[in-house]
Amino acid sequence: MAGNSFGQAFRITTAGESHGPGNVVIIDGVPPGIPISVEDLLVDLNRRKPGQSKIVTQRKEADHPEILAGVFEGVTTGTSLAILIRNEDQRSKDYSDIKDKYRPGHADYTYDAKYGFRDYRGGGRSSARETNVRVAAGVVAKKILQTAFGGQIVGYVTQVGHLKAEIADPTTITTEQVEQFADGTPNPVRCPDHGLAQEMISFIDQIRKDGDSIGGVAEVVALNVPPGLGEPVFDKLKADIAKALFSIPAVLGVEYGSGFGCATMRGSENNDHFVAEQHEGTPVISTDSNRHGGSLGGISTGQPLVFRAAVKPTSSLLIEQPTVTRSGEATTIRTKGRHDPCLLPRFVPIAEAMLAITLADHWLRWRAQCEATPERPDHV
Amino acid sequence: MAGNSFGQAFRITTAGESHGPGNVVIIDGVPPGIPISVEDLLVDLNRRKPGQSKIVTQRKEADHPEILAGVFEGVTTGTSLAILIRNEDQRSKDYSDIKDKYRPGHADYTYDAKYGFRDYRGGGRSSARETNVRVAAGVVAKKILQTAFGGQIVGYVTQVGHLKAEIADPTTITTEQVEQFADGTPNPVRCPDHGLAQEMISFIDQIRKDGDSIGGVAEVVALNVPPGLGEPVFDKLKADIAKALFSIPAVLGVEYGSGFGCATMRGSENNDHFVAEQHEGTPVISTDSNRHGGSLGGISTGQPLVFRAAVKPTSSLLIEQPTVTRSGEATTIRTKGRHDPCLLPRFVPIAEAMLAITLADHWLRWRAQCEATPERPDHV
Amino acid sequence: MAGNSFGQAFRITTAGESHGPGNVVIIDGVPPGIPISVEDLLVDLNRRKPGQSKIVTQRKEADHPEILAGVFEGVTTGTSLAILIRNEDQRSKDYSDIKDKYRPGHADYTYDAKYGFRDYRGGGRSSARETNVRVAAGVVAKKILQTAFGGQIVGYVTQVGHLKAEIADPTTITTEQVEQFADGTPNPVRCPDHGLAQEMISFIDQIRKDGDSIGGVAEVVALNVPPGLGEPVFDKLKADIAKALFSIPAVLGVEYGSGFGCATMRGSENNDHFVAEQHEGTPVISTDSNRHGGSLGGISTGQPLVFRAAVKPTSSLLIEQPTVTRSGEATTIRTKGRHDPCLLPRFVPIAEAMLAITLADHWLRWRAQCEATPERPDHV
Amino acid sequence: MAGNSFGQAFRITTAGESHGPGNVVIIDGVPPGIPISVEDLLVDLNRRKPGQSKIVTQRKEADHPEILAGVFEGVTTGTSLAILIRNEDQRSKDYSDIKDKYRPGHADYTYDAKYGFRDYRGGGRSSARETNVRVAAGVVAKKILQTAFGGQIVGYVTQVGHLKAEIADPTTITTEQVEQFADGTPNPVRCPDHGLAQEMISFIDQIRKDGDSIGGVAEVVALNVPPGLGEPVFDKLKADIAKALFSIPAVLGVEYGSGFGCATMRGSENNDHFVAEQHEGTPVISTDSNRHGGSLGGISTGQPLVFRAAVKPTSSLLIEQPTVTRSGEATTIRTKGRHDPCLLPRFVPIAEAMLAITLADHWLRWRAQCEATPERPDHV
Repeated sequence: MAGNSFGQAFRITTAGESHGPGNVVIIDGVPPGIPISVEDLLVDLNRRKPGQSKIVTQRKEADHPEILAGVFEGVTTGTSLAILIRNEDQRSKDYSDIKDKYRPGHADYTYDAKYGFRDYRGGGRSSARETNVRVAAGVVAKKILQTAFGGQIVGYVTQVGHLKAEIADPTTITTEQVEQFADGTPNPVRCPDHGLAQEMISFIDQIRKDGDSIGGVAEVVALNVPPGLGEPVFDKLKADIAKALFSIPAVLGVEYGSGFGCATMRGSENNDHFVAEQHEGTPVISTDSNRHGGSLGGISTGQPLVFRAAVKPTSSLLIEQPTVTRSGEATTIRTKGRHDPCLLPRFVPIAEAMLAITLADHWLRWRAQCEATPERPDHV
Repeated sequence: MAGNSFGQAFRITTAGESHGPGNVVIIDGVPPGIPISVEDLLVDLNRRKPGQSKIVTQRKEADHPEILAGVFEGVTTGTSLAILIRNEDQRSKDYSDIKDKYRPGHADYTYDAKYGFRDYRGGGRSSARETNVRVAAGVVAKKILQTAFGGQIVGYVTQVGHLKAEIADPTTITTEQVEQFADGTPNPVRCPDHGLAQEMISFIDQIRKDGDSIGGVAEVVALNVPPGLGEPVFDKLKADIAKALFSIPAVLGVEYGSGFGCATMRGSENNDHFVAEQHEGTPVISTDSNRHGGSLGGISTGQPLVFRAAVKPTSSLLIEQPTVTRSGEATTIRTKGRHDPCLLPRFVPIAEAMLAITLADHWLRWRAQCEATPERPDHV
Repeated sequence: MAGNSFGQAFRITTAGESHGPGNVVIIDGVPPGIPISVEDLLVDLNRRKPGQSKIVTQRKEADHPEILAGVFEGVTTGTSLAILIRNEDQRSKDYSDIKDKYRPGHADYTYDAKYGFRDYRGGGRSSARETNVRVAAGVVAKKILQTAFGGQIVGYVTQVGHLKAEIADPTTITTEQVEQFADGTPNPVRCPDHGLAQEMISFIDQIRKDGDSIGGVAEVVALNVPPGLGEPVFDKLKADIAKALFSIPAVLGVEYGSGFGCATMRGSENNDHFVAEQHEGTPVISTDSNRHGGSLGGISTGQPLVFRAAVKPTSSLLIEQPTVTRSGEATTIRTKGRHDPCLLPRFVPIAEAMLAITLADHWLRWRAQCEATPERPDHV
Repeated sequence: MAGNSFGQAFRITTAGESHGPGNVVIIDGVPPGIPISVEDLLVDLNRRKPGQSKIVTQRKEADHPEILAGVFEGVTTGTSLAILIRNEDQRSKDYSDIKDKYRPGHADYTYDAKYGFRDYRGGGRSSARETNVRVAAGVVAKKILQTAFGGQIVGYVTQVGHLKAEIADPTTITTEQVEQFADGTPNPVRCPDHGLAQEMISFIDQIRKDGDSIGGVAEVVALNVPPGLGEPVFDKLKADIAKALFSIPAVLGVEYGSGFGCATMRGSENNDHFVAEQHEGTPVISTDSNRHGGSLGGISTGQPLVFRAAVKPTSSLLIEQPTVTRSGEATTIRTKGRHDPCLLPRFVPIAEAMLAITLADHWLRWRAQCEATPERPDHV
């Protein structure tokens, strides 16, 4: 009931606070026989971790995972898998400021209103720190997608403030292009338009110096997804992916395919048309364009899944902001150091993880039902 | 697993196809003692039903509900409530066209790919016809919100094609303003800007004559929602509402508060600030603006919840469109009559219903946990 | 939350009261392509229905099902399947007796205590009348078991009062033996020991004439279940089957394998030993006895699943019983006519249905996970 | 899907193996404001832990819990609570025996059949070692019951082999009586009949010397449970409690109230009769006997809940037993040391925990629904 689980057939459940002992995830429904190591987990954890570049928070966290259960002799056993990431940057601190003051844009007030009790250290459970175990779970999910249908997830930043990349074809963007510049140096902002990426970096650096923050947009693409994932009615693929993305802190908007742009379009402009090729006597059906974003009727079409999320500017600012205390007295607050001036670079691996988890879940859900079909008609 | 349920504490499960015997919903978790009648259900069913105006589909469906269970002597019993709406417009028809041809923008192909079997009559389970029982369940949910905290849901159309209303303050829009013009005549397009509404009606009528369709945007607002609804991490209020809205056919985007507009904003511009008034010695905390859209950290703040959804133009067109058959042969298709030239007017009650269902669910989920708190500290 | 659903991958949700319009079940997760007809449903519904013999209730209910959704052209579509069974015996009645008096052994008082509101007509939601749609859903589940692994479910009565059958080998009992005597006439008590069955019939008839009722025990066996069904820890097969059986009204005990008899046994007596045969180079492993009842560690072993349930004597009696009214005044009550003098004969198809539903669910749950295993080691 | 969660409103999810790093539980739905300390957890953990007396396994495990999340400044925060218990007795061992041989009565074979992969060290996930975190979660549940309605859970052993205690009135048994003899020394067998307890201890000691094991029965009682817990139809209180008890390894039977004894009873003998007293003008309704075991129609009556579970003799024996290897070759196996000669003494706190968790879940589920009832009629 309290919302700390996601998924059905592939289900993650998490616990942990920003400044408590650590965060833990239990993954239920992992297929047996999948190789998983700490090194596998670190690939994406390092993409999310603090201090990875100048334009993200400089908080110190190694984010080193411990696999507590579910892996034996290097492969998954099929029983529940648990991963623990201890918090390290728990130095003794003066939290008196945020103990009684409600930080603008944060969940301090809403947690107090809901529970009456609150772990006020760095946001406690509301902190995005909990996303580290989601990213670890995402690595397991990505392995399932890769094993099951060669599925690949690629996320990247398309907009930071007024700087907006025009991505001609989302299906051509590679992880290499997102993570590195042509010369092999890291691309800290994760925008695949490298020219624009340089501008974004400078812009974010200026925002940081201003003690302010800036919003943006990221796009996430899933390739090689077969037609058939997603369920009718409530658990449409687009619905569950949207929930997954909106479950990430700071996301204010999600769209797929033509998105909000569809509002000004006619059906004759927005509809994609089915086309077919024959492969060894079997028709392979696709569409001649992808304004539908990879799903129709809530079910994947076999075209790339393409989603975008709008991420708000970080609420923590070095600039002084007016607010109130728990007892309602007017006051001001200024966050002391080390926030992300722009959330987007670290958002990318989190969004990828949530998309991967959603797809792994839907794939397993579908297979259960398929497996029991007595015989399918021709051509399908 | 197959996605035909929504919610946890207030949970709806549906079945039914477009041209089968009918649609049915079972609602689990309804509190006892709530008065529900067929007349109550009809209020919103009539706002969704076909044929209600010139600018919607002219299909004939009375959409008359039968309460099968869960109501005794006019009030809910607390046990599962079932509502059946029979299909009436099941006249013998020639479905050969859509039996073998994949309609662009529809789920014909994806259902075939997923299941191998498909009820091809009018889209079967993928048809938006199933939303009639959601609207019926939404009436029950609205009653719970009203009983529990005076909650009100108001939805309306803000954009049809290029015609876009500027809503200065979403909290002032009333259902009367949405449903009627000043002279008491029905407002078939459900845009509260009555001047623009007249333009929208003419525009949709022209689109209809063109045999085409047009997209748009609707906004849904929940008033009087107390602070505290929504769960940390995965079942954030924004996440579950987004899932609810994306579960409606044709929705391509959802945003709340400043939405995609946040991408170009600085934190110092986007943050709302907490303010407080004292009521009989107790601080009442609110924000001086509502760019956050009513939730922070996934939990309601007590400010109005404000969501927008982008709805694509109807995929069925009178215009001939290219497509393929099940066996992959190129062909063309032209939908014969009676589609909605614009989905938005009938989308409004469906979106309201899904928002109400999500809020009723979260309210019941929260109460379970609250109820067992031994004692809450002061001021909260 | 309100408990009207059962299962995960194969999930049934029900609504309905004893004297309301009818009962309805929605089945979510049915594989596509399975032939289902009203005639299929009637086979088991007729085994459960009132009036089928002299030793069961003479209430008049045809229990004729209507398939509302999920079946097209005779086969399941993979989308949610709904079945409605209308109540027919709703004649105008004087319910004043049970409106205010709490019937001993019934749920009148507990429903009042829980909800404050109660459909007092014949027990409302607490009546075993709701099991008719479970039996219908059980037919669908049995088809899945049959299709998937040739699974067969056979239930029968082993005890009525002091009359107790010794079943040497549960795996040899056939449905024919349970349903018919050697001469082809119906076996109304469903005990496969035909000599004892005749005694049971006479005994129940005497109990009926006394205005009293009698308890008993039924055994249910599942054959051909492959090893691997059931989940570790909480959703052990034995746990979910026990829940399924205890969810049937009047069940006071469930045991499997050596059951309560294990309390007096030593490990060296109770343990079954593994044995193996080689089939075309692959070892086929079984046990030399079946005191474990078909599952170990909560997972099926490939041996027959054998469960027993103790069913209490019907609470409704023609004999006058002391009780109290809602306001706490002492009174007496005597049920007017038409109750089952012994629940066991009609319990058999209900228990079979719940076992079938549980197995179908677990089979689908398992397949989801298996399907994604990259490669299994040898010999397994 | 993989069965590692239990409960809905109060939901536990676990991971961990017998000889892996440890076991972890995440508890979702804990009300805020409940004091929880490591010392609280240790009370019941010490009752379950190995080595507590001569008649249980001598394996060395301190079972010291670490609270990873969900408790701040000594009280629960309302967000997910995590507890980790590391395994300590992980000494390097020769597992070659059980790696390839299927131990009789254990889950070695079924795990292999299900997953193809298996953590063979000490049973891995199938070991009862995972129940240590259930007991920790049970402490949290017991606190909720105590806070909410003064609920108390008392479990005890009633039978070991042929030694069977006659408990005249289960409601009078106290934890003190179960845990200690009259002179204050520990009662290691947890049978409240102290004379019989001494016989049981000697008997178990003899069984241990024989290298064998013995079965038994435990009874668990919940006191002060108000009327109203439990849900109609599938989630009946008796059904969920039975599932909870059957989810514990080695349980072969569960019964409540008159249990299997009901089979030989007439309704006129088995029915309990309602009686009432007036307390300040309000009727307080109870029953004059408790053969129903505390629930009717699946909902608690306000009478004590009384359940019994049959527990099989430990499968691990010092005596040599025949079995087969993974490849199907006949062999023998003899467990080397340190098993429980009788599971019952350590079973008691585990059964208490599962009953407490089930009741906490149902209480929270009920409160959600109640809370929203507009107004209840009189006398209820």
